[in-house]
Amino acid sequence: MAESLNRHKERGRTDRAELNALLDQVPWGTLVAVRDGRPFVVPMLFARDGDRLLFHGSTGAGLLRYVALGGPVAFSVTSIDGIVVAHTTFSSSANYRSVVIHGQVEVLADGDRWDALDLLSNRMLPGRTDEVRPMNNKEIAATTVLSLPIGENWTMKARSGFKAPDTEPFEAWTGVVEMRTAYGPAIPDEDGVGRELPASVRSLLD
Amino acid sequence: MAESLNRHKERGRTDRAELNALLDQVPWGTLVAVRDGRPFVVPMLFARDGDRLLFHGSTGAGLLRYVALGGPVAFSVTSIDGIVVAHTTFSSSANYRSVVIHGQVEVLADGDRWDALDLLSNRMLPGRTDEVRPMNNKEIAATTVLSLPIGENWTMKARSGFKAPDTEPFEAWTGVVEMRTAYGPAIPDEDGVGRELPASVRSLLD
Repeated sequence: MAESLNRHKERGRTDRAELNALLDQVPWGTLVAVRDGRPFVVPMLFARDGDRLLFHGSTGAGLLRYVALGGPVAFSVTSIDGIVVAHTTFSSSANYRSVVIHGQVEVLADGDRWDALDLLSNRMLPGRTDEVRPMNNKEIAATTVLSLPIGENWTMKARSGFKAPDTEPFEAWTGVVEMRTAYGPAIPDEDGVGRELPASVRSLLD
Repeated sequence: MAESLNRHKERGRTDRAELNALLDQVPWGTLVAVRDGRPFVVPMLFARDGDRLLFHGSTGAGLLRYVALGGPVAFSVTSIDGIVVAHTTFSSSANYRSVVIHGQVEVLADGDRWDALDLLSNRMLPGRTDEVRPMNNKEIAATTVLSLPIGENWTMKARSGFKAPDTEPFEAWTGVVEMRTAYGPAIPDEDGVGRELPASVRSLLD
């Protein structure tokens, strides 16, 4: 992808809308910190909550405890949107959208974790909190929730469309092969067999 | 994902086979370096070539030039395989496979870049190098290719299957919603209209 970057920094509402669209489409990203001078990397589910991202994990998770100390982190989210098929391999490329957000995380206090965890649950399964019992105190106590502000320090890159124009004659097919994340099938476990698919799951299926 | 990690380090051929399967399935990952004490992060296409990963980009690309200096890098590849729908939000999870490979990159010499770039091209579009002209000297000169050895310093994590057993009674549907990357449609550009889809593109379509 590095050969075809269309770099653009934040430039107003349009780009922030593009950023939000990416963050609301892709449910996971890569959380990075620096420990002993080396990269410390973990993929994480996340949810956007307005101007911040939320992450959760066990209170025992190593990277979460480490980043909670307040060092600089980066969170990267990418969607590969398609393969750009050109008349040469050199001109072929990938369509994608990608953001890296830099900042420091904050640890959510007990009282703030209830809503945050509901938001995270509904991010993966829309409306799921209406279908199951609420979390309880023990579960809340066992879960760390971190937030990362979407401040000014983010860089979004994107490529879209077909190959760049070129006067070289050729015979090959050229175009774009689109890529997307597909959901399904929904496979019941032994408790789920014979039960109706809930609205949360149905909302994901293609 | 952090709440459900099934951590396992390299433990022989089985795991290396699992690692290869992941690296041969997902065509991109997140390349991370450390610069001025902060994470330096870029998503990258890659291809596995035996016991190393290959990356390419413009000779002007910032992160590639930086990591070529030989500092420690990490490369992270993740596949989110499904959503584990449990009877509580606390027990819900994601199925995934993820690896972080640590090491230092090497810059490929001119003579080694031809085969490496063909391999990268065919990774995204199987057999594409049989359908278009070979790269030329100018294109090779404009392209940086880096390799990252798959040594001993990698950690693969994975979760699969249904929710963990639990004696709590409930009424909700439970199971797994599978996720995968879908390819298509293939959309011709103005040069591609009316031309037959090549084998490389057809091999990707579902």
